[in-house]
Amino acid sequence: MAQPNHDSMADAGDVLGTYLRSQATAFLRGLRLHEQSGADAAESGVAARSLRGAARRISGSLATFRVVTESSWADGLRTELVWLSSTLADEHAYAARLARLMDALHRLSGSPELPAPRGSAGALTVGSARAGALLDRQLTLARTRAHSATLQALGSSRFHAVADAVAVLASEVPLDAVAARGRVGEVLVPLAAVAETRLSAAVSALPPVGDCEAAPSPYDADHDGLWHEVRRLLRVHRYAREVLGEDVTRPAAASEALDRHRDAAEAAAASATAARTPRIAPATAYALGVLHADQRHEVEAARAEFQHLWLREPAVTPR
Amino acid sequence: MAQPNHDSMADAGDVLGTYLRSQATAFLRGLRLHEQSGADAAESGVAARSLRGAARRISGSLATFRVVTESSWADGLRTELVWLSSTLADEHAYAARLARLMDALHRLSGSPELPAPRGSAGALTVGSARAGALLDRQLTLARTRAHSATLQALGSSRFHAVADAVAVLASEVPLDAVAARGRVGEVLVPLAAVAETRLSAAVSALPPVGDCEAAPSPYDADHDGLWHEVRRLLRVHRYAREVLGEDVTRPAAASEALDRHRDAAEAAAASATAARTPRIAPATAYALGVLHADQRHEVEAARAEFQHLWLREPAVTPR
Repeated sequence: MAQPNHDSMADAGDVLGTYLRSQATAFLRGLRLHEQSGADAAESGVAARSLRGAARRISGSLATFRVVTESSWADGLRTELVWLSSTLADEHAYAARLARLMDALHRLSGSPELPAPRGSAGALTVGSARAGALLDRQLTLARTRAHSATLQALGSSRFHAVADAVAVLASEVPLDAVAARGRVGEVLVPLAAVAETRLSAAVSALPPVGDCEAAPSPYDADHDGLWHEVRRLLRVHRYAREVLGEDVTRPAAASEALDRHRDAAEAAAASATAARTPRIAPATAYALGVLHADQRHEVEAARAEFQHLWLREPAVTPR
Repeated sequence: MAQPNHDSMADAGDVLGTYLRSQATAFLRGLRLHEQSGADAAESGVAARSLRGAARRISGSLATFRVVTESSWADGLRTELVWLSSTLADEHAYAARLARLMDALHRLSGSPELPAPRGSAGALTVGSARAGALLDRQLTLARTRAHSATLQALGSSRFHAVADAVAVLASEVPLDAVAARGRVGEVLVPLAAVAETRLSAAVSALPPVGDCEAAPSPYDADHDGLWHEVRRLLRVHRYAREVLGEDVTRPAAASEALDRHRDAAEAAAASATAARTPRIAPATAYALGVLHADQRHEVEAARAEFQHLWLREPAVTPR
């Protein structure tokens, strides 16, 4: 366990202000990189990721430590940052989903160099090429639309207002005069504990995982939302720890498992959607069914991994 | 660890003879029950299972302890018993495969009482009823054919010759005059060790299981045969231990995992075969694809369970 970098006697406003300023600077750097990247997809992807990361960190810490800042300002900026990061995320999400499904299809149908083996893989090869083409068409279309939406968002006056607000934040953080003068241990630490309690409650509400009787079927997407909510709260918890200068190795690893959970659930849904395309061949539908079940099993595996990473140590660590 | 029931100084012929006579008696009892059961499917199923079990035990121990018996007699009877038990097994196998696939379809498409949930399960319900009907038609036809083959086999002169040979065995076992007078510890134990060594070699040749890089894809049915061979050798090993009066709890549990492995692999293949039926609807093919992937995941789970059951203790136990 790393020790907190901040003295619990330090001013809450100083600690939160330093974090928010550094994230605002990262946001502006990401924005500059994105503007410079032009048509370079890889570079613009990296820039968009760092923009999104900074936007999420600012909005997450404004949520947890709302009362330490000027609350009405915090609420307004937070809403705009959530809008921006979700808009920026879509394009990347469609590209990643297509790559994940293509990888899975390739794995499921075996190496194309080898002669089709007897049984499953051979039957699968028939449809997997067409399933791949269908998914490629549908997800590339969605991605192109998301790309246009991103360009439109980045050119909008709404975006310019957010960028201006973050530029102000980079030099000066609007703080609550009273709360900001409190000590870290008396102001920020209890607020971070509230975020952690919320996370623990959401984790306790998760349905059981694995072979036990009560565990829902891995094909039952009804419970996905509970896990997505834990993913969101875990992120907020992690950023709160970052503000306090604490070790985030464990929440970061658990977050990754839940990111995989989300990705697999979305990929399974994309496969099911593609299977509802009218007039597809049975072989295509069969390959999409295999793909769907495969991704739902990845959902299950990610759930088990999260439980392993997060519950093997006590959720509340000593501060 | 249970202690051997037999004194290692006892006569090999006495010990093997006692086991073979008791199994021959069980065979004849199963046969009588089967004849009396008539049209009662449940009763005739139980009788057929006990017939098969006794036939497998006799042929297995004749294979391991071949030199202790009159070898030419043993080879002839063994061939006939293998034919008989595989003929008897088919009908049961088709019925069990259909039940397994119907259970899986029911599990995959959720409870029919509930409104179809958003996403996967809803899409699946569309095709799963038709997939179920298709599998039911195909496997019921195969089962009916197997039933006719069983009836034909049980009425054949070939079968009557086997039954006569087993009836002789129930009273007198043709033994090799020299080897049968040896001591259990010097004759039967080394022969049983040969069977165990063969099993260990087959287990070592199994491909890795789980998430490691070298593990083959769960959809790759090319490796199934290696596991089926381990299943067969494990059974021979288990019967050899039974002859020696040793504890068979562990090989029996490991056998069950490999039985499940075989059942899931066959069910996955049946689902793939059904998907190749001409002119099926895409929704049906999709449900069969999900079913196929689900059963291949059960294959993986059974492999992991076998590894856990069999490799967590040393394979060679002290005698």
